[in-house]
Order: sequence, then C-alpha cells, then structure tokens
Amino acid sequence: MGKNSRDQRASVGVFDSGVGGLTVAREIMRNLPNEHIVYFGDTARVPYGSKSKDTIVRYSRQIIHFLRTQDVKAIVIACNTASALALDEVERELDIPILGVIKPGARVAVEATRNHKIGVIGTESTINSHMYKRLICEADPSITVYEKACPLLCPLVEEGWLKDPVTEEVAKRYLDGLLGKGIDSLILGCTHYPLLRSLIREIAGDQITLVNPAYETAKELGELLEREQLGNPDAPDEPRTAEPYRFFVSDMADKFGSFANSILPYDIETIQKINIEDY
Amino acid sequence: MGKNSRDQRASVGVFDSGVGGLTVAREIMRNLPNEHIVYFGDTARVPYGSKSKDTIVRYSRQIIHFLRTQDVKAIVIACNTASALALDEVERELDIPILGVIKPGARVAVEATRNHKIGVIGTESTINSHMYKRLICEADPSITVYEKACPLLCPLVEEGWLKDPVTEEVAKRYLDGLLGKGIDSLILGCTHYPLLRSLIREIAGDQITLVNPAYETAKELGELLEREQLGNPDAPDEPRTAEPYRFFVSDMADKFGSFANSILPYDIETIQKINIEDY
Repeated sequence: MGKNSRDQRASVGVFDSGVGGLTVAREIMRNLPNEHIVYFGDTARVPYGSKSKDTIVRYSRQIIHFLRTQDVKAIVIACNTASALALDEVERELDIPILGVIKPGARVAVEATRNHKIGVIGTESTINSHMYKRLICEADPSITVYEKACPLLCPLVEEGWLKDPVTEEVAKRYLDGLLGKGIDSLILGCTHYPLLRSLIREIAGDQITLVNPAYETAKELGELLEREQLGNPDAPDEPRTAEPYRFFVSDMADKFGSFANSILPYDIETIQKINIEDY
Repeated sequence: MGKNSRDQRASVGVFDSGVGGLTVAREIMRNLPNEHIVYFGDTARVPYGSKSKDTIVRYSRQIIHFLRTQDVKAIVIACNTASALALDEVERELDIPILGVIKPGARVAVEATRNHKIGVIGTESTINSHMYKRLICEADPSITVYEKACPLLCPLVEEGWLKDPVTEEVAKRYLDGLLGKGIDSLILGCTHYPLLRSLIREIAGDQITLVNPAYETAKELGELLEREQLGNPDAPDEPRTAEPYRFFVSDMADKFGSFANSILPYDIETIQKINIEDY
C-alpha cells in the first residue's frame, strides 16, 4: 500500500472559479507547509455561483484534466459551488483522491452547534443545491438548517469593499432572516466570505460560531494524505527543484496576481494563462 | 446591388454576455417591428466586463459562428464590452454587416453635449479600453471625456435591486466624481444600465442628457438595413413561417426567461440552451 516517493513529492491540485479558492490554498500553505500546490483559477468563466450543474460539471472536468497534466497526487475543489454541483460526478471518474469544501464544513458545523440551528450562506447555485443542508441533516436529523443565497457578496469582495458601509448594509440584509431564527453557527459557504469575516462577526455578534470550510478542508486534506501515505516527506526548508506553489488562470493573470499577493503569505512570481477550453 | 428576398427575410443576430443585451433587442423590436431576431446570451460565461480582450474576441468568434448557423443577414453586438474589445477584430472576418453599441452611443453623445464635457460609465473592460473616449475625441477633439468603471452595477441589476437604497448609494459613489467635473451628458455604457435609468436620473439631475446606446444602435441598424437593401419587406402582422424572435443561451434558460419576460414587450415561448464551446 506504500506509495513511492515520486507520488509523495507530487503537488496537490487546487481549483476555483477565480481568486476565492486562494483562501483555501492559504490554509493549506499554513497547515501543510511540506505540500506543493498547483492552483488553477477559472478567471475566464468566473463566477460559477449563478450557473447550472451541467455547466459546472463540464468546467470541472476540463480543469481536472488540465491539473492531471501537471501530475498532481490529489485534488481539492476550493470552490463551494463546484464542490456542491460537481464533486460527486467527477469523484467517480478519478483514480486519485479528490475532496471539496462542503463536507468538511458541514461536519464541523454539526460538531459546533449546541442549539441545533445552523445557518448557511453561499452563492445562488450552492444554496439551491441544498448540499450543506442535506449533509448536516444526514449527520444529525435533529438539526434545522437555514439557508440564504448572497449573490452580491462576491462582487463586493472582488471590488475590494471589504470594510465598507455598503457591504455592511448588504450583508445585514442577507443575514437578518438567519439571525432572527436563532442560529448559533453560521457556515461561510463561499470561499470569498472568509475575507468578510470581521464584518460578518460584527453583524452576527460574538455568540455565533463562524465556520470557515477553508480551514477545515486543509485539515481534512492533511488527514487524507497521511491515510493514503501521500504526504510529502520533504521538510519545507529543504532545497527544491521547482517552485513549491504554481499558479494558472484562464484569463487576466495580472489582476489575479495582485489579488493573490494581497491575501497569500507568499509572493507569487509567475502566473501562467492557459486556454481551459482546450482541455 | 439589390438583395434577394431570402436575404431580406433573414433574421438579425443579436448577442450579449447574458441578459443585458435584451435592452438592445427591445429597442430593435420597438423601432424595427418588421425584423426577425435571433438572440444569443452567453449565460455560461457571463460577465464579460472583467475579462480580457483575447478572451472576449474568442467568445465573440464562437458566438458569431453559431449565429451564422442560424442564417442571419446582419449582426448586432448588444454588449458594450464585446463592442469595445472585439468588434474591430471580428468585423474584418465577416461578409455580412456587423455593428456594436459603442459607435452609435459615442456619435449621439457628441451631438448632445453643449459644454463639451461627457461622462462615460461602463464595466471595467469597457472603460479600460477607452473606446468611447477615443471615438468621441476623434469626432471632436475639443471634448473632454471623463470615464468611470462601475463593476457593482451589473450584479445589482441582476439581483433585481433596481430601486434600492443600496444601489442608489453605490451609483452615487461611482457618479460623484463625474458629476463634480461638470459633465452635461452621460453615456450609459453597459446594456444593464438603462434598467437603472430612473435612479441615475435622480442622482444626475434633470440637466444632464442620459445617452442610451441601445436606442441609438436600433436606429443605426435601421439605417444600415435600408442602405444595404436588407430590410424585411413583410409587415409585422403578416402571417409568418416561424417565430419572429428566437432566443438561445449557453446556460440557465429558465432564469434568462423570467428576466427576459420582465423587460420585453413580448412573451418568450422557448429558449434553447446550446454548448457554445462547440462552435
């Protein structure tokens, strides 16, 4: 069952519709410093949150096909929408491990809630899939899940209005109904939302647990790599033959770079643009 | 030089990244009731406003290729971003007339201004192309053009917050600088913005001419069809062999349909979903 060292030293593939998944990549960098990453952001077709299952499955297949050309040992879908709509489909077609952000997020929310009332916010497609609700209720049918799609939060994050009265007003309006239900835990079900954490914290108050699936996903990736004997044995400070973190996008590499450099604990040197429709 | 009646009875192809171009289709329906329309909305890859020239040219070529399979006699790019970034490229490759929304909008703004100060609002990519500015200054170098990208206005329209305090605050913030420059004309340089016309009117006041390129484009299409002897000779109330208006999208046909039915003077019966990457 032991994997060879070539497998172990391969990168983890991470993908998202754009920059949001960098919040997941950031947690992997922090928590699994040995691991190399190949990141793909589908900036030519972003956002995914308003698109259909068929389309998201097709896009995810193309991206996974591209990541396989980069010789990855495991794949993380660092996008809630693609995790909700495409993970089950593409998992069946793969011979390497793949995980999304929804299952880890749902699991931790079940552990966190005390009053059995959990709120979930996400894109339209994530919320309409009811994936968080389904997984939580499967784990514990006594829990009630309240869901709310928040389509304007991503554009506000992309515009950089992270601590802005407009963003606060929009977030308040979206959260009001959920908070009125007496939830004690709130899943940040879109990879952009951790960037609004302090604003959401102010609106929600100190008593509510904010669940960040990005962090939980990095932890679950670590457990998975250990279980599969796929962890990279090299210490992160050993000499490397290649850049440990490589970035690919389908469009607008420069803009991606400035966003990435503002949120990663690491300066991106090169970002390659590829035509994802060719995969 | 006379065209045959088969050409004249062919449809006009109209395309946009999504629903925004319906404001242009609506003006064509109102002003050229004889004409049939084939509309394509690229809802699988919307929005275009944050994407690069290369990508928008590639998408536009695919869409034009699809529209040609529907036997169109002329094409209207009902999207400011694609008009700004792709029109010049694709025009060279075509043997039927094609027009965008930027040139008609720029021409009318030049006619409208009295104090020679024109404002333009649009998506990031439209504004960064400086296409309105270039065309206006070519027509009259004494005019000063002030430009402002408004990336949040499209998502707010798509969310349906057309008369909302949040949208008003966002629009005010975007327009403040332009209004401070003393502009007397403002180009609504994105096909979503006419849907915010009354809100923008309130912020801008009565003294500023709001230029809606959708209306000007429909007028220019009429002139072009007449000049090329391509106008449909059938009166709109004559019996037709096919639905006069046909709609195609790359994703989410249902959602497109409800949006379309809310803004068109006509009920859409069928919307076909196609895979645009195949063209």
